[in-house]
Amino acid sequence: MSKILIIHGPNLNLLGEREPDVYGTVNLENINQQAIEWGNTHSIDIDTFQSNHEGEIVDQIGKAKDTYDVIVINPAAYTHTSVAIRDAISAIGIPTIEVHLSNIHAREEFRHVSTVAPVSRGQICGFGIKSYILGLEAALSIINEK
Amino acid sequence: MSKILIIHGPNLNLLGEREPDVYGTVNLENINQQAIEWGNTHSIDIDTFQSNHEGEIVDQIGKAKDTYDVIVINPAAYTHTSVAIRDAISAIGIPTIEVHLSNIHAREEFRHVSTVAPVSRGQICGFGIKSYILGLEAALSIINEK
Amino acid sequence: MSKILIIHGPNLNLLGEREPDVYGTVNLENINQQAIEWGNTHSIDIDTFQSNHEGEIVDQIGKAKDTYDVIVINPAAYTHTSVAIRDAISAIGIPTIEVHLSNIHAREEFRHVSTVAPVSRGQICGFGIKSYILGLEAALSIINEK
Amino acid sequence: MSKILIIHGPNLNLLGEREPDVYGTVNLENINQQAIEWGNTHSIDIDTFQSNHEGEIVDQIGKAKDTYDVIVINPAAYTHTSVAIRDAISAIGIPTIEVHLSNIHAREEFRHVSTVAPVSRGQICGFGIKSYILGLEAALSIINEK
Amino acid sequence: MSKILIIHGPNLNLLGEREPDVYGTVNLENINQQAIEWGNTHSIDIDTFQSNHEGEIVDQIGKAKDTYDVIVINPAAYTHTSVAIRDAISAIGIPTIEVHLSNIHAREEFRHVSTVAPVSRGQICGFGIKSYILGLEAALSIINEK
Amino acid sequence: MSKILIIHGPNLNLLGEREPDVYGTVNLENINQQAIEWGNTHSIDIDTFQSNHEGEIVDQIGKAKDTYDVIVINPAAYTHTSVAIRDAISAIGIPTIEVHLSNIHAREEFRHVSTVAPVSRGQICGFGIKSYILGLEAALSIINEK
Amino acid sequence: MSKILIIHGPNLNLLGEREPDVYGTVNLENINQQAIEWGNTHSIDIDTFQSNHEGEIVDQIGKAKDTYDVIVINPAAYTHTSVAIRDAISAIGIPTIEVHLSNIHAREEFRHVSTVAPVSRGQICGFGIKSYILGLEAALSIINEK
Amino acid sequence: MSKILIIHGPNLNLLGEREPDVYGTVNLENINQQAIEWGNTHSIDIDTFQSNHEGEIVDQIGKAKDTYDVIVINPAAYTHTSVAIRDAISAIGIPTIEVHLSNIHAREEFRHVSTVAPVSRGQICGFGIKSYILGLEAALSIINEK
Amino acid sequence: MSKILIIHGPNLNLLGEREPDVYGTVNLENINQQAIEWGNTHSIDIDTFQSNHEGEIVDQIGKAKDTYDVIVINPAAYTHTSVAIRDAISAIGIPTIEVHLSNIHAREEFRHVSTVAPVSRGQICGFGIKSYILGLEAALSIINEK
Amino acid sequence: MSKILIIHGPNLNLLGEREPDVYGTVNLENINQQAIEWGNTHSIDIDTFQSNHEGEIVDQIGKAKDTYDVIVINPAAYTHTSVAIRDAISAIGIPTIEVHLSNIHAREEFRHVSTVAPVSRGQICGFGIKSYILGLEAALSIINEK
Amino acid sequence: MSKILIIHGPNLNLLGEREPDVYGTVNLENINQQAIEWGNTHSIDIDTFQSNHEGEIVDQIGKAKDTYDVIVINPAAYTHTSVAIRDAISAIGIPTIEVHLSNIHAREEFRHVSTVAPVSRGQICGFGIKSYILGLEAALSIINEK
Amino acid sequence: MSKILIIHGPNLNLLGEREPDVYGTVNLENINQQAIEWGNTHSIDIDTFQSNHEGEIVDQIGKAKDTYDVIVINPAAYTHTSVAIRDAISAIGIPTIEVHLSNIHAREEFRHVSTVAPVSRGQICGFGIKSYILGLEAALSIINEK
Repeated sequence: MSKILIIHGPNLNLLGEREPDVYGTVNLENINQQAIEWGNTHSIDIDTFQSNHEGEIVDQIGKAKDTYDVIVINPAAYTHTSVAIRDAISAIGIPTIEVHLSNIHAREEFRHVSTVAPVSRGQICGFGIKSYILGLEAALSIINEK
Repeated sequence: MSKILIIHGPNLNLLGEREPDVYGTVNLENINQQAIEWGNTHSIDIDTFQSNHEGEIVDQIGKAKDTYDVIVINPAAYTHTSVAIRDAISAIGIPTIEVHLSNIHAREEFRHVSTVAPVSRGQICGFGIKSYILGLEAALSIINEK
Repeated sequence: MSKILIIHGPNLNLLGEREPDVYGTVNLENINQQAIEWGNTHSIDIDTFQSNHEGEIVDQIGKAKDTYDVIVINPAAYTHTSVAIRDAISAIGIPTIEVHLSNIHAREEFRHVSTVAPVSRGQICGFGIKSYILGLEAALSIINEK
Repeated sequence: MSKILIIHGPNLNLLGEREPDVYGTVNLENINQQAIEWGNTHSIDIDTFQSNHEGEIVDQIGKAKDTYDVIVINPAAYTHTSVAIRDAISAIGIPTIEVHLSNIHAREEFRHVSTVAPVSRGQICGFGIKSYILGLEAALSIINEK
Repeated sequence: MSKILIIHGPNLNLLGEREPDVYGTVNLENINQQAIEWGNTHSIDIDTFQSNHEGEIVDQIGKAKDTYDVIVINPAAYTHTSVAIRDAISAIGIPTIEVHLSNIHAREEFRHVSTVAPVSRGQICGFGIKSYILGLEAALSIINEK
Repeated sequence: MSKILIIHGPNLNLLGEREPDVYGTVNLENINQQAIEWGNTHSIDIDTFQSNHEGEIVDQIGKAKDTYDVIVINPAAYTHTSVAIRDAISAIGIPTIEVHLSNIHAREEFRHVSTVAPVSRGQICGFGIKSYILGLEAALSIINEK
Repeated sequence: MSKILIIHGPNLNLLGEREPDVYGTVNLENINQQAIEWGNTHSIDIDTFQSNHEGEIVDQIGKAKDTYDVIVINPAAYTHTSVAIRDAISAIGIPTIEVHLSNIHAREEFRHVSTVAPVSRGQICGFGIKSYILGLEAALSIINEK
Repeated sequence: MSKILIIHGPNLNLLGEREPDVYGTVNLENINQQAIEWGNTHSIDIDTFQSNHEGEIVDQIGKAKDTYDVIVINPAAYTHTSVAIRDAISAIGIPTIEVHLSNIHAREEFRHVSTVAPVSRGQICGFGIKSYILGLEAALSIINEK
Repeated sequence: MSKILIIHGPNLNLLGEREPDVYGTVNLENINQQAIEWGNTHSIDIDTFQSNHEGEIVDQIGKAKDTYDVIVINPAAYTHTSVAIRDAISAIGIPTIEVHLSNIHAREEFRHVSTVAPVSRGQICGFGIKSYILGLEAALSIINEK
Repeated sequence: MSKILIIHGPNLNLLGEREPDVYGTVNLENINQQAIEWGNTHSIDIDTFQSNHEGEIVDQIGKAKDTYDVIVINPAAYTHTSVAIRDAISAIGIPTIEVHLSNIHAREEFRHVSTVAPVSRGQICGFGIKSYILGLEAALSIINEK
Repeated sequence: MSKILIIHGPNLNLLGEREPDVYGTVNLENINQQAIEWGNTHSIDIDTFQSNHEGEIVDQIGKAKDTYDVIVINPAAYTHTSVAIRDAISAIGIPTIEVHLSNIHAREEFRHVSTVAPVSRGQICGFGIKSYILGLEAALSIINEK
Repeated sequence: MSKILIIHGPNLNLLGEREPDVYGTVNLENINQQAIEWGNTHSIDIDTFQSNHEGEIVDQIGKAKDTYDVIVINPAAYTHTSVAIRDAISAIGIPTIEVHLSNIHAREEFRHVSTVAPVSRGQICGFGIKSYILGLEAALSIINEK
C-alpha cells in the first residue's frame, strides 16, 4: 500500500481557530481528516506532520526516504526563506508536491518566489483546503506512473 | 448545466507531434478529449480554444462573460509577457484558473513570473496533462461553492 | 479638412458593459460619439478603431501615413509591453498623442512605464472620457501650428 | 464662483527670457495671462504662484484648502524629488492636476518618475503652454462633476 | 490585570557576559528585572521568553493569543530573515511592538530591513536597554486606549 | 537646566485640522503642549520648531549647538530625501532622536529608508503623539548618561 | 532542393517607403528580390513572409517543420518582447538564424536583449540588407554541414 | 573686468567652527578671503553666496545670467538630491564648475553620484580649500578661452 | 590540550547514505572519524556536532566560548540565509573557519553569498571531505599563532 | 589594394589543439589560412594578429589607422570587460566588425553584453569559423560602399 | 627636489593626431611639455609615462615608491575597470591624484564610476589639458603640506 | 614526479616590502620558498610565476597544459575582473585551485565575486601565507585521486 506524507509548515497550527473571516472555520484537523478520508477512498496511507520549526521539517524529510512514495508539503512562511528544506527535498529524491492555501503569486511580491519550487514536481496554490486534495490527486498520478 | 472554457496559449497546437522525448506523445487533441470526458463524468460542458494570437485570446475572454462559469487557461508563452490577457480576465470577472504542463518555477528565471497570476484564483503547474484535470477539479469546487 | 485617427487598444471594447462601478456606464460607443461630435464642432474628421490585436494596431498605424494629421491612441495594456506599436509610430512620423482613462502613474508599478511615450508628443491620463477630448484639443493645437 | 490655483515650480520664472530656441518666446507671464483669460471665459477665478522653494510650495498648498476647488501644478524639477509636495497634496485633499511643458517620459530616465503623480487626479505633459490650458479644462470637468 | 509578553530573539542570551566593551555589562537578566520592576510600578504582569530557535518563537507567539494584551519583541537576527515570525504576529492579531538595542538603521544595509515591521504597531531602536522600557511605555498606552 | 529642541518637518502644521479620520483630532499645538508639560514634569526646557522648508530646518539645527542637549526630530517627508538635514545633524554633533507618528516601515517602500537614521541615536515610530513622548524619555536617559 | 524561409517581423513592410534618410530607399521587395536571386545562384528555394502579428509569425514557424531546412528571421520589435516566437523556434527544432538591419547593440538599452537569441544558431546585425545575405550564407553552410 | 560667483551649499556655514579635527580650523570666511585675494591677484571680481536653502540657490543662479562669467559651486548635500539646481544651471547657460572639499567618490556610495555634474564643465574634489582655488583657476582658463 | 569544535549544518546527516553518485560513499561518520584521527595525530581534541536546526547551532556556538579554541563550521544551507549564526559567531569571538564540501561559487547564484563569511577567518570550499581537513590545518595554524 | 586586419583576442591561440569535442579540430592557423584564401579570391590583403594582452590589442588598433580599411575583431573574453579596446576603436575611426565563434547571446548572462558593440558596425556570432568569413564579406561590402 | 610622476592610460598616445574636432590639436607631447614647463617654474621634477597596458601601469606604480612624492594619473579607460591599478595605488601609499580630460560624469553612465577614486586624494575632470595642470597644482599643495 | 604551478597575480610582487602592518613582513620570496619546501617534502615539483599583466597570466596558463598536474592561482585584483583568465583555465582543463591571502568575502562587496571561481575546483581564502600551503595540500589530494 502506497504512503503519502503531508507536511504543514509554520503557523498552520493556528488555522481556523483564528481569523475565521480570512481563512474560514476550517482548521488543520479538518484538512488532515479530509486528506485521510481521501486516502481511504484511494487506498493510500496518509501521514501528517506540522511544525513551526524549520529544523524539524528538515529532520522529517530526511527520515521520509524509505517510508513514503510522495511528499505533499505546504512550507508556508518557509517557502520563501528556506534553503535547508529545499536541500532536504533534493537530497532524498522522493517526488514532492508544493501546495498553498492562498494564491501566493497574488500576494506581496516576496511571496511570489519559492525556494522549494525548483526541486518540486509541481505547485498548486490558491484553492484553500482543495489545494491539498488536488495535491493528493497529483501525488496519486505520480504513484500510478511508476 | 455549468460550462467551463479551456484556453490553450501559443505553440500548444504543436504539442505531441514534436519533441516526444520532452512532452511525451500526448497532443492537444488528447488533452481536449480527456477534458471533455471529465466534463461528461461531472455533467459540465467543456469548450476548448487554442490560439497563437494574444489578441484572439483577449477576444475570446471578452466574449466569455455570460457563457462560462469558470475559465481554465494555459497562457503558455504569454504567461510572462501579456498584460492584455491579464486585463481581460480582470475585466470580465469570471473565476479563472491558470495551469501549466511544466513546473514554470523550475525553469528559466523569466518563466517564474506570471502577469496573469495576480488576477487568477490559483495556479497549478508541473503535472503535464494532469495539470488540466486538476484545474477542472478546482473549477468544479468553485462552481459548487456558489 | 483635417483628419484625426483615434485608436483604442485591448479590452476597451468591454468598457461600460462591465464593471460599471469602476468605469461608470460610459462605453466605447459613447467615447466615439463624443469624439465625433467634438470633430463636428471643430470641423475635423474623426475616424475610430479598436482592436485587441497588437498586430492590427501596428497595421493600422502603418496605413495612417497619408490619411491622418494626428493620431490619438490609448494603447491600454499594450502601453507597457509593445515595442512594435512604438516602432510603428516612430516609422510613420505622424504626431501621436497618448491618452489613458485612468492615471497610470497611480496604479501598479508596471503601469508607470510606457514604451510608447518616448515617441509620442505628449501624454494625458487620469480624466476618464475627458482624457480623449483633451487629447483631441491637443491634436487640434498641433494641426493649427502647422 | 469656482477658484483654481496654478502653481509653477522651480526655474519656471526663467521661462522665455532664456533659451528661446528651446522653449520659444513664451514666458511665465504669458502662461498666466492665457490662464486668466481662460478663467474669464469660463467664469473661473484663477490665482497663480511661482516659487523656486520646495517649502514655499508646500506652504502654499497647505493654505489652499478652503479657498480653491482645484490645483493645477507644474512641479518642474521637484516632480522627481519631492515627497513633501506629495504629502501636502495628499493632506489637503483638493483635486490636483499635474502638468508639464515637455513630455517628461521622452527625456532622461530620472524624469519619467513623478513622486506627485500617485496623489494627483491625472497628468498632462508634452504640449507646451497648451498643457496648462488642457489642465484647466480637466479642472473644469472636475468642478462640474461635483 | 493586563499582561505583556517580552520575547528576546537569538543570541540575546549572550548579552552582557561577552563583549562588555560593546554592549556594556547589562545582561538579559538585568533587562528582564528592569522590565518586571516597570511592570510592578504600572501594575502590569510581565512575562519574558528568550530563544535562539525561530520555531520556538513562532510557537510562543501562537500560544499568546488569549493570555497577553501586547507583545514586545526584539527579534534580533530573525528581524531580517523571518517570514514565519511575521506571519505568526499577523495571525494572532495581538498588538506587537518591535524593539532593538542598537539603531539597526545605522548598521549594515541588510539590517535596515525588518520583515516584522509591517505587521507591528511601531518600532523603537537604538537606546540599549531603554528601548525595552520605551516599548513597555508604548504598550501601556495601547492598553489604555482600549 | 537641560534643554531639548523638538523639530517638526513639512506638513505637520496641517495635523489635526485635516484628515481627522486618519490622524485623529490631535494637532501640532497639542503635541507641543504635551511635550512642554512633560518638560515641566521632568525639569527640562522644551523648545519647538516647525517648518516646511528643508533649508530652515538645516538653519535651525546649525544654530542648536551650544543651546540644546538633545534634538528630537520628526523630519516627515524630508526623512526620505534630505541629505542636507543628515549632514547638519552630523556636523553639530548633538545627540538626535528620530520620531514618526506612523510606522514608516509599514507604509510605501520609499518610506522605509531614512537618510537621517544613520546619524541619529535611535528611531521611534508608529505610536502617534506618544512617539514624541517616548522620544523625550529617550532624550532624558541620554541627558542622564552624561 | 533545399528550402529557406525568411521571416520579416513588424513594421518591415514600411521599409523604404518612409524615412529614406534613415534606411535608404531599399524596401522589403528589394530585400526579397535579392534573397531570391541569391537563392537562384545557390540553387536554394527561398520563401518570404512578413507580418506585423506575433501570432501569425508563431503560426508560420509552427508550420515550417517539414518544409524548410533553415529559417532566417528578423523579428524586429518582437526580438525584445516575444517569448512565443522563442518557444515556437525551440519547438520545431529547425536551425534558425537571427538577423537585424541595424546594430541593435548600439541602440537603446532595451534593444540589446533578444529573447530569440538563446534558441538561435547565431545572430547577424548592423549591415543593412547585407545582414540578410550574410544570414543566407550562414544558412547555406548549415545546410552543407548536414 | 570678469566676474565669478562662488556658491556654497548647505551646512558650509558651519565649517571650521565645528569638527576642527575633521575639517581643520578653516572656516567659510577663510575660503571667501582666499578666493577674493586670488581674484585681486588675477583681476577678477569674486562674489560669494552661502545658503542652506535649495530654493535660494536656485534663485541666485537664475539671477546670475548677465552678471557673471563663471559660477563655481559647491552644492554640498544638494549635490546628490537636487534636480532644481541642475535645471537652473542648465537654464542660464553660464559655464559652471563643481567643487567639493572632500573626495566624494571615496565616501558613502550615495555621495558618488552628482545630479549637477552632467550640466557642469568639470568637477574638482578632494583637496579641501584648495579645491576652490583650483576651481577658480579652471574658471580663469574658461574666461581666457572666450 | 587545544580543542576544536566541528559544526555540521542541515542535511549533512544524510551524506553518503544517499546520492552516492554525487557525493560518493563518504558519510558524516567518516568525516568525523577522519577529523578525530587528524586530532589524535596533532594532539588536538575534536568535538563534532550536527543539527538541522538553526537554533541548535546558535545554541551550540553560544556555549562554545570557554571550551574551544577554534570552530570549524560547514553551515550548509544556512550559509546563505542565517544572520543568527553570523551574530553568534560574532558574539563569542572564537576564531571560526567556514568549510564546504562543494565549490559554492560554482553552483547556483544564491549559493555564492555567505552571510557567515564576513565574521569568519577564512573560507575553504570545493574539496569534499578534504575541505574539513584543510579547515583543521588552518585551525591549527591559528592555534599555533597564539 | 584594400587591406583588412583580423584581430583575435585572448585564448584563441589555444583553439583546436584543445577541447576538440567543443570547438572541433579547427585551429587559429586554419582560420587565418581560410581568411587569407578568401582575401586572395577577393583581391584583399589580409593581416592577422592574436594576443592575450589587452594592451597589445589596443596598441595594434592604434597603429591600424592609415594601413587598414576595415578591422574584423573577435575580442573573445575582452568583449565583456574592455573599455580600452572600445575607446581604441572609437579613436581611430576605422569601420570595425565584431565576430564570435559561439553565439554569445546563448551562453552565460555576462557574455550577452559587449562593450565593443556600440562602436562597431555590426556583430556576427554563432557560426564558428564561418563567423570570420561572414565578417570579411561584411567588410567587403563596406569597402565597396566607399 | 620633489618629484611627480604623471601616468597616462590607454589610447592617450593617439591624442591630437586623430579626432582633432573632438580633442583639438593638443597631443600627448604637448601635455608633457606643459607639465615639464610647469615643473621648471615650480622647481619640481616631472616624469611622464604612457602605456596601453594595465600591467605596465601597475608595474610602474609599484616601482614609484621611493622615487616620487605624488602621482598624477589619467587612467583613461582603465578608470572604470581596473582593480589592479587601484590596488597598486593603495599598496604603495604615495598620494595620487586622478585627472581626466573630459567630464566623465557627463558621459555614458559606465564612465561615472571610477575604481581608482576611493584610493586617490581627489579627482579633477573636464578641463582638457588644464586638468593636468590643476592636478599638478594640487600635487604641489600636498608636497607643501608635508 | 608531479608538477604544480603557482601563479601570483598583480601587486603580489609588492608584498612584504610595504604595508608590513597589514600583511606582515612575509614577502613573495618567502611564500615561494615555503611552497618549494613543501614540494620537497611531498616530492612535488613546484614552479612559481608572478605577473602584473593579465595577458602574461593568460599566456602562462595556456602553456601549462602538458607540463603541470595542478595550478594554484592567486589572481589578486584580476579575481574580480578577468574573464580572460577564467577562459584560459577553462580551455586547458588542468585542475585549478584559487587561493587568497585575505578573506575576500569579508572585504568590499566587489571583492566577494570571483570570475575565476566557477571554473576552479575550489577556493581557499583568509589564512595569509597558509592559504597557499592549504592550496598545495588540496592539489596533492587531487593528484593522489588520479
